[in-house]
Amino acid sequence: MSALKVGIIGAGPSGLAMLRAFESEQKKGNPVPEIKCYEKQDNWGGMWNYTWRTGVGQYGEPLHGSMYKYLWSNGPKECLEFADYTFSEHFDQAISSYPPREVLFDYIEGRIKQSNAREYIQFNTVARWVDYLPESKQFRVVFDNLKKNETFEELFDYLVVATGHFSTPNMPYFEGIDSFPGAVMHAHDFRGADQFKDQKLLLIGSSYSAEDIGVQCYKHGSAGVTISYRSNPIGMKWPEGMEEKPLVTHFEGNEAFFKDGTSESYDAVILCTGYQHKFPFLPDNLRLKTKNCLYPDGLYKGVVSQANEQLLFLGMQDQYYTFNMFDTQAWFVRDYILDRIQLPDHAERAQDIAHWMATEAATTTGDEHIDFQTSYIRDLMRYTDYPPFNLDQVATMFKSWLKDKEDNILSYRDKVYTSVMDNTKAEKHHTSWMKELDDSLERYLGEETLADAQAPHPANA
Amino acid sequence: MSALKVGIIGAGPSGLAMLRAFESEQKKGNPVPEIKCYEKQDNWGGMWNYTWRTGVGQYGEPLHGSMYKYLWSNGPKECLEFADYTFSEHFDQAISSYPPREVLFDYIEGRIKQSNAREYIQFNTVARWVDYLPESKQFRVVFDNLKKNETFEELFDYLVVATGHFSTPNMPYFEGIDSFPGAVMHAHDFRGADQFKDQKLLLIGSSYSAEDIGVQCYKHGSAGVTISYRSNPIGMKWPEGMEEKPLVTHFEGNEAFFKDGTSESYDAVILCTGYQHKFPFLPDNLRLKTKNCLYPDGLYKGVVSQANEQLLFLGMQDQYYTFNMFDTQAWFVRDYILDRIQLPDHAERAQDIAHWMATEAATTTGDEHIDFQTSYIRDLMRYTDYPPFNLDQVATMFKSWLKDKEDNILSYRDKVYTSVMDNTKAEKHHTSWMKELDDSLERYLGEETLADAQAPHPANA
Repeated sequence: MSALKVGIIGAGPSGLAMLRAFESEQKKGNPVPEIKCYEKQDNWGGMWNYTWRTGVGQYGEPLHGSMYKYLWSNGPKECLEFADYTFSEHFDQAISSYPPREVLFDYIEGRIKQSNAREYIQFNTVARWVDYLPESKQFRVVFDNLKKNETFEELFDYLVVATGHFSTPNMPYFEGIDSFPGAVMHAHDFRGADQFKDQKLLLIGSSYSAEDIGVQCYKHGSAGVTISYRSNPIGMKWPEGMEEKPLVTHFEGNEAFFKDGTSESYDAVILCTGYQHKFPFLPDNLRLKTKNCLYPDGLYKGVVSQANEQLLFLGMQDQYYTFNMFDTQAWFVRDYILDRIQLPDHAERAQDIAHWMATEAATTTGDEHIDFQTSYIRDLMRYTDYPPFNLDQVATMFKSWLKDKEDNILSYRDKVYTSVMDNTKAEKHHTSWMKELDDSLERYLGEETLADAQAPHPANA
Repeated sequence: MSALKVGIIGAGPSGLAMLRAFESEQKKGNPVPEIKCYEKQDNWGGMWNYTWRTGVGQYGEPLHGSMYKYLWSNGPKECLEFADYTFSEHFDQAISSYPPREVLFDYIEGRIKQSNAREYIQFNTVARWVDYLPESKQFRVVFDNLKKNETFEELFDYLVVATGHFSTPNMPYFEGIDSFPGAVMHAHDFRGADQFKDQKLLLIGSSYSAEDIGVQCYKHGSAGVTISYRSNPIGMKWPEGMEEKPLVTHFEGNEAFFKDGTSESYDAVILCTGYQHKFPFLPDNLRLKTKNCLYPDGLYKGVVSQANEQLLFLGMQDQYYTFNMFDTQAWFVRDYILDRIQLPDHAERAQDIAHWMATEAATTTGDEHIDFQTSYIRDLMRYTDYPPFNLDQVATMFKSWLKDKEDNILSYRDKVYTSVMDNTKAEKHHTSWMKELDDSLERYLGEETLADAQAPHPANA
């Protein structure tokens, strides 16, 4: 066992879950394989690691981060809580249900800092190319130490790909967009609403990015936000100044034309048109080729590659559950590597995948999607000792969250939920979300001041 | 000979020069090796192939292009003219000395379209990883067909790297820039001045990008342009509304603080801080590791890698001469591959490189840099049948261009020069550069209208 070598690519929430899973085994005094983790960024935390840069990073690699200033969780923290490390344990006080980025980053980091996991991680290092060597049944991985501009090789018996899938923009062309005079960017490169103060914005897309960036820009003083959808509108009760329109057909100068025959001029366009699963370091026969969905084809139990049993993927699903889903996946992968879980044969695995995919295909509503992912996690948890928690209760919270958003997209973040892990009831944040313009950890954990309470909202100032 | 395989990475001006070099040999009825060329973009032309995208391209690869709308040549076209395909031959009329992008693209394309070169090029295909196989003395190159999401391997006896070096931004951090509220971008992602109309801009850098983007934004109606330099100012006679300041020390909100103790607030920051030579597809022992200079270390005659004689680099120098320099390099590489040029041994080559580097190190003025690159090209031309042209006269034009810019940074593009290739004297463009707001090929080759002649400049309107 101790001769086995495991490589983990990525030290975001999924890669860190993998390290945590092995760590929990080691703490019990059980032997674990030799583990090495490689991270392109200069710090852990994946998507939660904010950068001011856009496009490519310091060393010219495509940026991982799609994070922006003023991002607050868009789902209740009670739905993503680690089962083995609660928010109460970390903060030692009750906090609200929708914390800002820095607070969630702190929480993720808090758990992993309990161990020496950082020693296993080589930062500023990108996986450049993977070859599978059939004779030795190992992966040869070429890594690139970006800081030193040096490449090197490692051999692994198992390769865990935890590189995320909200990093590579999907950016369709619209006729005339090449001569739109204002800023044109993908949501991936959106770094905050300030730049768009007093501007009329067109957001194209109808998923979380459009919804949240739209609301953020509204909150921080944009002159107007139009969200353009391809098939179906998001359908919230938008405040005055926000609206939805059908898809853009083309642009002429700064004017956008829509499918319903209307047109309007804008100062800037943000393409909230989703992301691509991209694995440039893998030969194409090992790549996961999928659109964003709850059960990608080719992954047994959502993690073991059908192309190669030694190749594992974490967090490649579309997500309701996030951190705790990555955990249940990581625990499964750990026990599989430790030989405690035996795989059925290839055909049987294909059948299992097909069954899940058919079930997903039959879902239509948000509630059904939530139930589907709940079932998936429940299934995974049967295999491991990941601390059990009340999944039904989490599913109920998710459904309630969907309703909260429909009721009021501007105030749903003021709602509070109760942890299923330790029954802590969230505290209302001292300032309502619409009035809270400072998203720092310091401010979040501090007290409301009198000035805050009296400050008008900039959109109304 | 016919068994030899040559791989060319990149179909910009350098890669196309390589194809042209072999084509000219083929036209004489001489045998040439098997040639394959791979281009990441969906068209040829390299940097001259404009895209509206920023950051990463359609398939998530770092964008090659740093091109922007309204870019006009910043040097006389007579200094970059192909010796074997003149501007007169292409346009069949005299044109001005400083054409806009689309016109230069048309010219580049015009020459290569004379052959079947396009058949040799596989577009939307990126070089992913190169291994040198010492036993067969070949390169194994893994390519990635981006459109099909498919990888494949090819073996080559010679590998020509023509991937450019103005694509990977060098983007230093300045304290506080992470919370600057306005747009922050690298020159690489600048797509045109329109977005910055009526805005106060801070450009950091003191080379061509800062100079040209600054002047473009001034021309197209920015409210003010400050250029911040690290060591020395560019030193032009800037018009009212443009100025130079020493380096930024830090930012506080939208206020930039400079080394001279002054501070000022801005709407946007553009980092014109240069580019990195980056070769992610090469093992580090084959990479060219250099800053931007006129004679990079490790390249014999500026093209043959000292790390591996079968590895060639084109266009990796900083450039006064451009297209015709790439040509002289490509002709040299062709004749080297065709075994007409014998390399001295490694030590002698190192000595030759050291000599050139020492000579460059002793240059300080623009005129000396021009003379240096003129000597380099003269040296290369001794080896091949690339059509000889009056290099001294080109050098004189370059020096005159430097002076023109110093005299008036806003009107130097209205000057005209005479071709050393066919003695064609350039025609003045119908509209002065400062008044010409339309950079299309159609407009450029057309006649001035009465309305144009009477239109005020937007900055004065």
